[in-house]
Amino acid sequence: MQILFYSPDNKPEPWLAGLSQVLPQARVQVWQHGMGTADVLPADYIVAWKPPAAMLAGHAGLKAVFNLGAGVDAILQLGAALPPNVPIVRLDDAGMAVQMAEYVSYAILRHFRRFDDYEAQRRVGIWRPLRPHDKHNFTVGILGLGVLGSRIARAVQHFGFPLRGWSRSRKDLPDMTCFAGEEELDDFLQSSQVLVCILPLTAETTQILSRSMLEKLPKGAYLINVARGAHVAESDLLALIKSEHLAGATLDVFRTEALPPQHPFWQEPRIDITPHIAALTLREESIRQIAEKIQALEQGEPIVGIVDRSKGY
Amino acid sequence: MQILFYSPDNKPEPWLAGLSQVLPQARVQVWQHGMGTADVLPADYIVAWKPPAAMLAGHAGLKAVFNLGAGVDAILQLGAALPPNVPIVRLDDAGMAVQMAEYVSYAILRHFRRFDDYEAQRRVGIWRPLRPHDKHNFTVGILGLGVLGSRIARAVQHFGFPLRGWSRSRKDLPDMTCFAGEEELDDFLQSSQVLVCILPLTAETTQILSRSMLEKLPKGAYLINVARGAHVAESDLLALIKSEHLAGATLDVFRTEALPPQHPFWQEPRIDITPHIAALTLREESIRQIAEKIQALEQGEPIVGIVDRSKGY
Repeated sequence: MQILFYSPDNKPEPWLAGLSQVLPQARVQVWQHGMGTADVLPADYIVAWKPPAAMLAGHAGLKAVFNLGAGVDAILQLGAALPPNVPIVRLDDAGMAVQMAEYVSYAILRHFRRFDDYEAQRRVGIWRPLRPHDKHNFTVGILGLGVLGSRIARAVQHFGFPLRGWSRSRKDLPDMTCFAGEEELDDFLQSSQVLVCILPLTAETTQILSRSMLEKLPKGAYLINVARGAHVAESDLLALIKSEHLAGATLDVFRTEALPPQHPFWQEPRIDITPHIAALTLREESIRQIAEKIQALEQGEPIVGIVDRSKGY
Repeated sequence: MQILFYSPDNKPEPWLAGLSQVLPQARVQVWQHGMGTADVLPADYIVAWKPPAAMLAGHAGLKAVFNLGAGVDAILQLGAALPPNVPIVRLDDAGMAVQMAEYVSYAILRHFRRFDDYEAQRRVGIWRPLRPHDKHNFTVGILGLGVLGSRIARAVQHFGFPLRGWSRSRKDLPDMTCFAGEEELDDFLQSSQVLVCILPLTAETTQILSRSMLEKLPKGAYLINVARGAHVAESDLLALIKSEHLAGATLDVFRTEALPPQHPFWQEPRIDITPHIAALTLREESIRQIAEKIQALEQGEPIVGIVDRSKGY
């Protein structure tokens, strides 16, 4: 069995060692820029993050492409370069869900408990208890109810925040009001004091958080985006914070990453910025999961996580 | 039925209105400084936070004293002024436990996910992913496993941190290693990368977090104190942070509150400071709970929350 690996964001050696250990029958090769088809052994499986089209050519016996990370927008952009009948497999979780729950819980608690205000006071030596927000009015709305969105929901429930969720197709999750489809999006937005975006990036969700949508949030609402920068119309978001329709935002993702030094977000103190670290792909857990799925595929068993290319996730 | 109310930290009117509403058979009076026994109707129940000794005199038919808030150290300091056979009743939770879980989760996540470092970078416009901490080595130790400590434990478990707890008498809580008594305290401290203090303040726990104890924590450990300032030997803590044996601390409570402007904690950026706001007594929930307990007592039924004065909690 031949496995071909590529990631621009990870050192290849530990992945090579890890995959070889759990799949001793496999030969694992690292793809590198500049390689031609003659340099690469035909792969049974490709394990990749943001693979270039060139990497995918010339694998007649390819059985599956594993996408490192949860979002498949980058790989699906390859379009025709993707072998049409080969399944693209997402890592469902690989330790990312709990990281997302951590990140979003932190951002919600920071805003709800006014820790940002307490920090500002602390920096200048002020001791002053502040009026707390009322939890009953602090409804959290989660936009996207896949594996990651559902895990975030559980964390929000753990702390007892009123909770709502929206997804394209109807979901039925315990102890929360679930909205579905375009026709229920307005109702969902109107009731979300905190909006958490964890949508897949598709043609339909690109720029979904535009002025017309963000304006439907209640006055003083707060945005947390842990999905993709392209979900947000950035100048609209900034304008709505400046006009105080929105109280602020915590953003982990941006249209251009690294966020350019001259980007106006840096100048707006009501925007918390992190450098796309909300959830990192964890190597050990990913390798374990890839190995399990390859073993299942080799035995002709079904696996979960196959991407529906028509939906884009 | 006569109820006497006092709190230096709360406006009395909403408490008066709330207690009168749920206990329509009661007359509720607010005690004020300067009142003599002649000004005060003999009370059946006292509802108080940090009551002065003078308030407790002259109530021959007193059936119980309700302590607003979780800690009973202030009221027990009254000693002989407390009618010896009258039960002192603690509010077990009254919405404080989830607030404690919020506060401690925030502080742990802030340190674990390096949000403090990301904020420092953000303020000067730096985009740089940082090496994450390893959760397997990030053991959280909870000092005190009462109602509040147990609730904190559940939140820590929700995020999958390795968890240990210590209490004076042995507790058996699900999915965590429980240590008990003085002889197991060292083992507990040695394995706690984050130490959360939520002990009651008693003669035995005063200054429990002295240099000799804090030194037993592993190098780079982090302290979160949401109990009482008197648990901590403040100069020892500061010295251990300066010497980098401890990575830092999040403190909500201090020996002197408000924390004086000249206190050296303000000058140490590795100490996060909040003005004793980790958990506020929630009025509605407290009133509901006090009413339930009074109704039970009136009917001769047992209640939970009676303080063991010999233990001090």
